[in-house]
Amino acid sequence: MGVKSFGDLFVEELKDAYDAEKQMVKALPKMIDAVGSQELRSALQIHLDETQGQVLRLEQVFNQLGMSPTRKTCEAMHGLLEEADSLIDESDDKLLSDAATIAAAQKVEHYEIATYGTLRAWAQQLGYSEIAGILQQTLDEETDADQTLNQIAYSLNMDAVSQSRNR
Amino acid sequence: MGVKSFGDLFVEELKDAYDAEKQMVKALPKMIDAVGSQELRSALQIHLDETQGQVLRLEQVFNQLGMSPTRKTCEAMHGLLEEADSLIDESDDKLLSDAATIAAAQKVEHYEIATYGTLRAWAQQLGYSEIAGILQQTLDEETDADQTLNQIAYSLNMDAVSQSRNR
Repeated sequence: MGVKSFGDLFVEELKDAYDAEKQMVKALPKMIDAVGSQELRSALQIHLDETQGQVLRLEQVFNQLGMSPTRKTCEAMHGLLEEADSLIDESDDKLLSDAATIAAAQKVEHYEIATYGTLRAWAQQLGYSEIAGILQQTLDEETDADQTLNQIAYSLNMDAVSQSRNR
Repeated sequence: MGVKSFGDLFVEELKDAYDAEKQMVKALPKMIDAVGSQELRSALQIHLDETQGQVLRLEQVFNQLGMSPTRKTCEAMHGLLEEADSLIDESDDKLLSDAATIAAAQKVEHYEIATYGTLRAWAQQLGYSEIAGILQQTLDEETDADQTLNQIAYSLNMDAVSQSRNR
């Protein structure tokens, strides 16, 4: 389809975000099952619950625009998850694959921070203030999830470094 | 190959970042040619120069590790650029395709912020303090590039909104 107005561009980006979140809801349980650290598992589980809420928020945004929720394949998220899978699979033990999982999850968070940052700015500029508020809630969650992963990464990576040195 | 130590994981991530930057060096000139706004064109041109410098920095890091610079296909960047291409192509005029270009470029910047954030943290934890310093320089450039795009986006999107309203 052609993008003929700024509103069309907003809707295209919304469909991309909706597909990205759906891909995450499908991918996270497999990541959670493969994780070794209890702290990381809990954080990812919480983020899975949040992601399900983010899907519902996007459905609410589509409804407010009088549209049915529609997906448009998000190639970027597809690439991010494919890359995550291969790095995690190649890692020889749980400490290393947990470090790879955090790195991959932070790339996903940053992808979503950029996406929701754009969507929220576009919503404001289109005068959709209620929708901008809904998108801001998700943006805040993604930023917090990235911070939580930073904290977990620090202690977990120190363990991975000492383990690698002691071999 | 298998990732057997934290050092191996760092090198895998480095190869991914090296490929991602090379993909960007190839993609940016086409994006720059297609842009309508002079301000955006200059910002992307500056970022192309920076990206070429970031490639050299990664080569310096490989050299410090006693390795030849090696690429490992970055599927995420591939997806990001594919998505950028299609949204820009679908947009009906320059104001809209410029807005789509900024959104795509900010996703790329955030992808790189996450990548270099991880690489810098891993370098520090591995005791590679000089390498961590080199990676920090790129991280700062990516963060600044994202801020510059935010500023350009604001004025450009306001024009796109009014144009869409006046049709």
